[in-house]
Amino acid sequence: MVIDLNSDLGEGFGPWQMGNDDAMLGLASSVNVACGFHAGDSDIMLKTAKLAKARGVGIGAHPGYRDLHGFGRRPVPGLTASEIETMVAYQIGALQAVSALADYKVTHVKAHGALSNVGCADDMTARAIAAAIKAVDRDLFFVVLPNTALERAGEAAGLKLISEVFADRAYEDDAQLMARSKPGSVLHDGQQIAQRVVRMVQDGAVTAASGKVIKMKIDTVCIHGDTPGAVDIARQIRAELDRSGIAVAPFSRR
Amino acid sequence: MVIDLNSDLGEGFGPWQMGNDDAMLGLASSVNVACGFHAGDSDIMLKTAKLAKARGVGIGAHPGYRDLHGFGRRPVPGLTASEIETMVAYQIGALQAVSALADYKVTHVKAHGALSNVGCADDMTARAIAAAIKAVDRDLFFVVLPNTALERAGEAAGLKLISEVFADRAYEDDAQLMARSKPGSVLHDGQQIAQRVVRMVQDGAVTAASGKVIKMKIDTVCIHGDTPGAVDIARQIRAELDRSGIAVAPFSRR
Amino acid sequence: MVIDLNSDLGEGFGPWQMGNDDAMLGLASSVNVACGFHAGDSDIMLKTAKLAKARGVGIGAHPGYRDLHGFGRRPVPGLTASEIETMVAYQIGALQAVSALADYKVTHVKAHGALSNVGCADDMTARAIAAAIKAVDRDLFFVVLPNTALERAGEAAGLKLISEVFADRAYEDDAQLMARSKPGSVLHDGQQIAQRVVRMVQDGAVTAASGKVIKMKIDTVCIHGDTPGAVDIARQIRAELDRSGIAVAPFSRR
Amino acid sequence: MVIDLNSDLGEGFGPWQMGNDDAMLGLASSVNVACGFHAGDSDIMLKTAKLAKARGVGIGAHPGYRDLHGFGRRPVPGLTASEIETMVAYQIGALQAVSALADYKVTHVKAHGALSNVGCADDMTARAIAAAIKAVDRDLFFVVLPNTALERAGEAAGLKLISEVFADRAYEDDAQLMARSKPGSVLHDGQQIAQRVVRMVQDGAVTAASGKVIKMKIDTVCIHGDTPGAVDIARQIRAELDRSGIAVAPFSRR
Repeated sequence: MVIDLNSDLGEGFGPWQMGNDDAMLGLASSVNVACGFHAGDSDIMLKTAKLAKARGVGIGAHPGYRDLHGFGRRPVPGLTASEIETMVAYQIGALQAVSALADYKVTHVKAHGALSNVGCADDMTARAIAAAIKAVDRDLFFVVLPNTALERAGEAAGLKLISEVFADRAYEDDAQLMARSKPGSVLHDGQQIAQRVVRMVQDGAVTAASGKVIKMKIDTVCIHGDTPGAVDIARQIRAELDRSGIAVAPFSRR
Repeated sequence: MVIDLNSDLGEGFGPWQMGNDDAMLGLASSVNVACGFHAGDSDIMLKTAKLAKARGVGIGAHPGYRDLHGFGRRPVPGLTASEIETMVAYQIGALQAVSALADYKVTHVKAHGALSNVGCADDMTARAIAAAIKAVDRDLFFVVLPNTALERAGEAAGLKLISEVFADRAYEDDAQLMARSKPGSVLHDGQQIAQRVVRMVQDGAVTAASGKVIKMKIDTVCIHGDTPGAVDIARQIRAELDRSGIAVAPFSRR
Repeated sequence: MVIDLNSDLGEGFGPWQMGNDDAMLGLASSVNVACGFHAGDSDIMLKTAKLAKARGVGIGAHPGYRDLHGFGRRPVPGLTASEIETMVAYQIGALQAVSALADYKVTHVKAHGALSNVGCADDMTARAIAAAIKAVDRDLFFVVLPNTALERAGEAAGLKLISEVFADRAYEDDAQLMARSKPGSVLHDGQQIAQRVVRMVQDGAVTAASGKVIKMKIDTVCIHGDTPGAVDIARQIRAELDRSGIAVAPFSRR
Repeated sequence: MVIDLNSDLGEGFGPWQMGNDDAMLGLASSVNVACGFHAGDSDIMLKTAKLAKARGVGIGAHPGYRDLHGFGRRPVPGLTASEIETMVAYQIGALQAVSALADYKVTHVKAHGALSNVGCADDMTARAIAAAIKAVDRDLFFVVLPNTALERAGEAAGLKLISEVFADRAYEDDAQLMARSKPGSVLHDGQQIAQRVVRMVQDGAVTAASGKVIKMKIDTVCIHGDTPGAVDIARQIRAELDRSGIAVAPFSRR
């Protein structure tokens, strides 16, 4: 039994750092690299690609809206499909080229922040993201949340889909993430989260907040490293998977 | 007899336009597309790629320093070789990916503004630019000024070099461009410039300001379109080449 | 009888120009100067301040969202009241200081693009804009559209309000601008627009698309200069006001 | 006996943080606030102004080159005097207006990074900085290194000068900072640095690396907080001043 753990990395900019990339590169098996629009720059991208290569960790593009100041967490309303396509393609190509300097291949794409949130709900945005990936390299894996517009768009485009669950987020009965505004939507107990991840992987299912068991294709689990507490939780997840005999490996190598 | 005419294009940003891209796409056979650091954005890049494809005009990346406000005309001192490599690779990859949306292939790279000026004189910078091109795609043509650090770096890296002359700039006896500060360094008479271009192509030589004839490999002639006057001169060059039976075609197609 | 004509100016950035500032400085009596967030930079701001001073034209800050690429035409969702206050205050202060280099005083503030649109409808945004103006300098005039959240917020803050109408936009019966998506919402005939402006000023009223006459305080009329056609219309407006014996002068001088 | 300790603060941007502002606001008596060009944004500026006000710490503008990615550490060559004036004025005015939201007054200006380094040596740059300060508010204190072009320009402009020494930098016999490239140019031992600061203040003199004692007007001592080690050294300096009966207070209150 094997699973992938993915984490967002390379989210500094110029002199500024974000999160603990070193620690996360020892815990995740795939990392999503910021490409300069919401965070990241070409130097951080190369550094991340080199470190990922050295550790056997897969790298993917993590395109976001053009919004450095807001870290890509705010939607940019009014973009056309073509504007989203060029925005996403630009960022993927930039990472591919920078990674070529490390002689390391980009294997996947996962939308960042507000672009992902909008893409989960809005078909036009989701199709534009999928179209960009397909045009740039149809062999790139497309990391999506199950039962969203992103998944539907990826399927329609014939892309290789990677189905992602969240280690620390509660689910509704319809397989959607519970809104962050609801109490209990985010889990904080590391041991509880770690055991939950093991169960998810073993069962191929997510247990909703109501107790309902939802069968789901689970290819990767998203883990975080942007706070010291988050890194600790990630360590517990990784340890619990080890104890349970579940290997952690990049989805792109399977 | 055949020659390439190259021009810098796609130098708007967001709502702002620069030059007359439409006119130049009917006069040049290769265009150098700004990649977002000194000018250009992903939408303008796609638009330029589509128009170039429709007209059979070759497209290349035109990477510059990260300097939108200064249009890449000011050197950025203190960059390391690696920082220049990632900066150049990022921009090339971005254009490749955006052009893929138009199903059109990037064929060459030409450094912009201050990056080109510094690269002509500084071996470290020149080698970093060449290393970036080589890592991203060693089949890309590298447009260089003859007898410069850029040319030497391109040769050492084993890149396919395209040798460029300027239609409207005076040359010194050592084949270098005359400094803009000197009187007579820039030519303004369209007919004179056009006849000079024809002679350069026919003779495979540039005539220096002193009258000295300098034999030179001439693969492409740089023409401008950023002012109404510049477009008129470009039209005269194109017309004079036609009259002289010299075909104009992308170097990348030969 | 006297009226103010206001126009948005200084909307270039770095090497890029927008509109015909020279022409508009001869037609408008007050100009709204972009402050670097959606357009404009400190050099353009100083140049505009100097030209305005030389022509006796009043200058105001024209703060927008932080969105150079989108020219401030897209809302930035999710900002807090404090974030809007600092964003607006920053831009006003920047223009005040740059104008001090020209020994010329900033007299008013008018929100730009999406910030104005959101501010017309959203009380929180409108109050934040008003609070910023009040904190920076309570003697600044606040240019608002009548019957909007901006006007209400300005009144509540005790600011000196300037009531603005649009020369070329149709009005609904409730004194709101007709949505641009509706046919007839934007007028294009220069002579018709010019005569309408004269009537507005003489009557102190706007005639809605339905023919309904809406009494309104009219302190300034917004005119445009971003296209050659727009400048022509502005000239016709100015000429028709002259013919009708209506003087054009900055509201800040009255 | 009383001295000012100044520190650079508010050097985050958007989601990114830099240094330990909280700690430094308890140690410094004057802080230099980044104004958005090399670091800082309007929200961080307001937060810093509020905290400084609450602690009785003076605030000043810390203008830098337009270079977010390089943190203002790289010179921007080729700017005209007017371009430097507008760049500096813009940043001062922005901070003044944002600080008005906290009802707190900006008292001084200190150039940041490469702008300070260039200003120390280049008369044109130094005069432009001084001219900007004078135009915006001639009552602002101008923090300068003794025996530099900045000091000369400030004197010539009639500005109120504040003379700054560095706690942790070695000096040459001509009162200039020893170049960072030389061994021993930067001191690292906190206790040694703290005792040196006390001696500087008591003697009104700096002891050069050679042992030569250089009499100097000392109004403020620059301390750093960008690393945990730096904060510790700052604490030692403050403690040693306390032990020696030297009060720490903003120069702007004396």
